[in-house]
Amino acid sequence: MTKVIFVVCDGLGDRPIKQLKNLTPLEAAKTPNLDKLAKSGITGLLHTVYHGIRPGSDVSHLSLFGYDTKLYYKGRGMYEALGLGMKLNKGDVAFRCNLGTIKSDGIILDRRAGRIESAEPFLKELDGTQINGVRFSIKAGVMHRSALVMSGYNLSYKVSDADPHETNVKIKKAMPLDNSKEAQFTADTLNRFIDLAQQKLKANPLNKERTKKKLLEANYLLVRGAGYVEDVPSFFDKYKMSSCCIAGAGLYKGIAKALGMDVLEVKGATGTFTTDIEAKMKAAKEALKRYDFIFVHIKGTDTAGEDGNFLEKKKFIEKIDKAIKLISDLDDTLVVVTADHSTPCELKAHSADPVPILMNGPGVRVDSTKRFGERECANGALSHIVGLDVMPEIMNLLGKAQLYGD
Amino acid sequence: MTKVIFVVCDGLGDRPIKQLKNLTPLEAAKTPNLDKLAKSGITGLLHTVYHGIRPGSDVSHLSLFGYDTKLYYKGRGMYEALGLGMKLNKGDVAFRCNLGTIKSDGIILDRRAGRIESAEPFLKELDGTQINGVRFSIKAGVMHRSALVMSGYNLSYKVSDADPHETNVKIKKAMPLDNSKEAQFTADTLNRFIDLAQQKLKANPLNKERTKKKLLEANYLLVRGAGYVEDVPSFFDKYKMSSCCIAGAGLYKGIAKALGMDVLEVKGATGTFTTDIEAKMKAAKEALKRYDFIFVHIKGTDTAGEDGNFLEKKKFIEKIDKAIKLISDLDDTLVVVTADHSTPCELKAHSADPVPILMNGPGVRVDSTKRFGERECANGALSHIVGLDVMPEIMNLLGKAQLYGD
Repeated sequence: MTKVIFVVCDGLGDRPIKQLKNLTPLEAAKTPNLDKLAKSGITGLLHTVYHGIRPGSDVSHLSLFGYDTKLYYKGRGMYEALGLGMKLNKGDVAFRCNLGTIKSDGIILDRRAGRIESAEPFLKELDGTQINGVRFSIKAGVMHRSALVMSGYNLSYKVSDADPHETNVKIKKAMPLDNSKEAQFTADTLNRFIDLAQQKLKANPLNKERTKKKLLEANYLLVRGAGYVEDVPSFFDKYKMSSCCIAGAGLYKGIAKALGMDVLEVKGATGTFTTDIEAKMKAAKEALKRYDFIFVHIKGTDTAGEDGNFLEKKKFIEKIDKAIKLISDLDDTLVVVTADHSTPCELKAHSADPVPILMNGPGVRVDSTKRFGERECANGALSHIVGLDVMPEIMNLLGKAQLYGD
Repeated sequence: MTKVIFVVCDGLGDRPIKQLKNLTPLEAAKTPNLDKLAKSGITGLLHTVYHGIRPGSDVSHLSLFGYDTKLYYKGRGMYEALGLGMKLNKGDVAFRCNLGTIKSDGIILDRRAGRIESAEPFLKELDGTQINGVRFSIKAGVMHRSALVMSGYNLSYKVSDADPHETNVKIKKAMPLDNSKEAQFTADTLNRFIDLAQQKLKANPLNKERTKKKLLEANYLLVRGAGYVEDVPSFFDKYKMSSCCIAGAGLYKGIAKALGMDVLEVKGATGTFTTDIEAKMKAAKEALKRYDFIFVHIKGTDTAGEDGNFLEKKKFIEKIDKAIKLISDLDDTLVVVTADHSTPCELKAHSADPVPILMNGPGVRVDSTKRFGERECANGALSHIVGLDVMPEIMNLLGKAQLYGD
């Protein structure tokens, strides 16, 4: 039976960049292996949620896996927490957090504390805090990232982000998003925790060291993405394929766990620029022996886009391409390479620009696309598709689509 | 007024085939007349129901004629029965059947009894059987196909197929699909009929003759597709065009009848490989005098696909092409050529791969497509459309589309 390796290069899509002779980082990069897959596959452009929708990584991944986000998306926090291996109980509310830097007047200087290497030493003294009978569990993720879980009675996920999502503005309190007592209580209790965290972070001796080294202080916890998990049909229930996830960053492991995929830990898979993509591809190849569907997530392209660093993005794409060689000559395997959204360097943020997609394997109608790029793939025979089309297209190629009608 | 000839080549779409130099049967076939229509027309790719949906021929035809199957599709059986000219009354439940071959242990050897030439001599003794006060009418269709109608009180169409839809597995009983007494009664009564049919078929002397000739016995009735007719707006109600159908196989005549199209009987139109396609095209040309919209259905492409016989499929496409010449130089006529789905030879089954479509006639924006094929048409100016787009596109070209807004 044909198996699937599904590679998502986070934030891969981009816009033409003057300094790259008006090419995108992907178009400018030397990508002989991706080009080979595109040339002997079928290609198109993918609107990962829908035309003109600028998606977060959570909703875009749910869509790519065929889950209608209008039904199944209830906030990001839970995926982050699951991804970091935290235990969650019914009634808990989970958030994702950044360690950031604020000035004494409460103006945000940097939302990532200078992309700090690890939040862990800053967060450990906050884990287990109790306020108003609510227990706060916090766990560090990759770099500045972490997840926070509130456990207790009478909590609600209807609270706004305590994060303005931009720099040079004042910090923001969490606010109730409906008129319930529970939302008010949750927002109040969370705000008290954030204040306490601010005092403890400020007093942390590690920040004195950072100041000495001319690094930005990690002195504030930016909390956002309140969420809870809905009961969703598992990936296996939907597609009757066993599946696993190979990823560095927490969110993607969390989404995989929420859908019942096994999460494989790969040494060197860090979710950063220095991640070992070849180790991931080797693990994917190995996983073909045990799984029908292997989801590989690569984060660095998004990070470079958010930094606006098009040279880094181009370089990282070339690193991906090198690793892709390891999965480019497999028998009876459908290799799909795409992205969850564009992160144009000029915007330093996610955008709705569609992303290229290639499918290479048995039965595909090989089209005339010669290279894997945003504009080459616009002429591919898949044309423009949307996120919820992807899994049906894959199931069709595998000859596993359900018949509708007779 | 511009009239329409709408040609559906069943199961026309395919996937690249190694032995055809990685071309599809349509791409490999010599089709000068279809190519001429494509070259002087507008082309695209059609997802006959929706992206990634693998459609049965019934739902795909309803979609092509602009009927939303979510509203109007209630099982295939009724179309088969109508197509064979059977009389149907309210409360009847209709099925389609195959004459198949099973072994003594109940394992299915062939679902088409070696594509038997006619089921008629086997079925006539079953017609009119009464069980539990229910009358069973059965009528042979093309080759192994037939339709079965249950008439009586307290019947339900909520019964599962008594057909596992594959070979080398055991035969299957019909089961009730809801908790009603009616569904239980219908399933029980149908199962008794199938048992009786098995006894009679086994005892039929024609099977001894078949065994002597080393042909597969026609010893089992595979019953599936329980259905009833909803009141649907007629084709004329929807489009204010008189319409007719030219087809060999029963289903398509049945769908046409259900939509209020006249069914024209054409000598030599058999729904098999030896069908007289030129006679059909001549009849279509002739019908332009009396009808606004002429639906021509050609079955052989699907049959070849289901057999996995790509050479036969290619040959049959060339036969279609030759006949197409007869309708390729008509004044004031919009000729549309497409398919109801792909039937890739590698799958021997319907698939969701989109099918090529061409529209040739007054007013079309002739595009740069030079040949009628799956990949050439992917670059056509219609781009990718879905089934429910087809009739609105046609109505627009005819200048008959309703104004929306003011």
